Amino acid sequence: VMERMPGEAMVYLGDTARVPYGVKSADTVVRYARACARILLEHDVKLLVVACNTASACALEALRAETAVPVIGVIEPGARFAVEATRDKRVGVIGTAGTIRSGAYPKVIRVLAPSVEVFSKACPLFVPLAEEGWTEGPVTAEVVKTYLEELREQRIDTLVLGCTHYPLLTDCIAAYMGPEVTLIDSAEATAAVVAETLERMDMSASRAAGPRHRFLVSDSPEGFERVSRRFLGRPVDHVEWVDF
Amino acid sequence: VMERMPGEAMVYLGDTARVPYGVKSADTVVRYARACARILLEHDVKLLVVACNTASACALEALRAETAVPVIGVIEPGARFAVEATRDKRVGVIGTAGTIRSGAYPKVIRVLAPSVEVFSKACPLFVPLAEEGWTEGPVTAEVVKTYLEELREQRIDTLVLGCTHYPLLTDCIAAYMGPEVTLIDSAEATAAVVAETLERMDMSASRAAGPRHRFLVSDSPEGFERVSRRFLGRPVDHVEWVDF
Repeated sequence: VMERMPGEAMVYLGDTARVPYGVKSADTVVRYARACARILLEHDVKLLVVACNTASACALEALRAETAVPVIGVIEPGARFAVEATRDKRVGVIGTAGTIRSGAYPKVIRVLAPSVEVFSKACPLFVPLAEEGWTEGPVTAEVVKTYLEELREQRIDTLVLGCTHYPLLTDCIAAYMGPEVTLIDSAEATAAVVAETLERMDMSASRAAGPRHRFLVSDSPEGFERVSRRFLGRPVDHVEWVDF
Repeated sequence: VMERMPGEAMVYLGDTARVPYGVKSADTVVRYARACARILLEHDVKLLVVACNTASACALEALRAETAVPVIGVIEPGARFAVEATRDKRVGVIGTAGTIRSGAYPKVIRVLAPSVEVFSKACPLFVPLAEEGWTEGPVTAEVVKTYLEELREQRIDTLVLGCTHYPLLTDCIAAYMGPEVTLIDSAEATAAVVAETLERMDMSASRAAGPRHRFLVSDSPEGFERVSRRFLGRPVDHVEWVDF
């Protein structure tokens, strides 16, 4: 979103004390997502992005029902890109246990393109691997093979990386799946939908670039400053602590 | 504790909505551990076991300072067993990032036996591996090798499994470290200290067996009922949900 809309000021909230969400029950994810939304709305945001697949899968309807600003999740944009990309109408979806259990991707894809077949697989170890920084090497290659073998056998031609962490493992996943499989990163898809929505509602920022962003986290700000370089591709300073 | 003291009624609290603790900052672990202790003390427990290495490493002093009943962590018992087991005075300690960063094991071992050398290594992927149920196989063998190679080179003769999850990986760890290395499971060490403490304070249960236990969790009770068989070695029913 920052790259595509450099004039927009972001209020970013990372619930770093309570992640990962992908292993929690849907009830708990909804409760935590509501608490996060409440804090962001106190900052007068004009649009809310649920930038987590598990929270999007479990909590999007609840958040939309109780929020006055537009709420955009990452599932619908990723599903849309996948439907546009598939040639053989065979799409794979990987995500956390929570995202896959929710069935959110197959549900949305069925609405967009009923003839597309969807093959889903939960990959719980991908998040800790990415957080450990093991984005390549023998362990990651073996984990990728173990999780993705059945999707490869299904001859999918498009694979949705249905978790914010998974793009860090792109090289390893692409090497295993082969060049004929298109990988869909829902971050890019979501940024496109955010831009469209702001334009359609005539709410885009008037400035061209250089707004002041705010970063809020629920665990130690120092820890976040360390990892943000890897995840955001840029260092951040002035990270603020929030208590739930 | 249940096996060793079958007459004691347990109140078990699993903060399942906010685990894992091992990746959080010390401040957050202290805050969460205090909230857990508060709930258990409301149940009039006569003794509090901090049955998590990370919480013991970060929060034991804070909990002892503000709690009237005895508070027993898992670090001191494990350290004591390790000091008794080592022949060459070379002890390895593995644990979460939080436990290893705290330096709690080397600190305690230095007090008990200043001549013992301690070699520590954080193994962040062991918890997700155990939770995924991959307690053997090529991935786990490769992760074990990657983390434990330097401890094996240090020719330790005793290794503390400094995280409640790690005993699930015992076979794989033992196979890599070899039969000359003694593995210390702090659960057994802690149960021994709990029994000693209750006897010394004349607080042991008068009944021989069959008390009613209570199980409280912060995430879905159903999820806990599913995994409890693997972790507790027995099914539990009547799991209650607590909100923090």
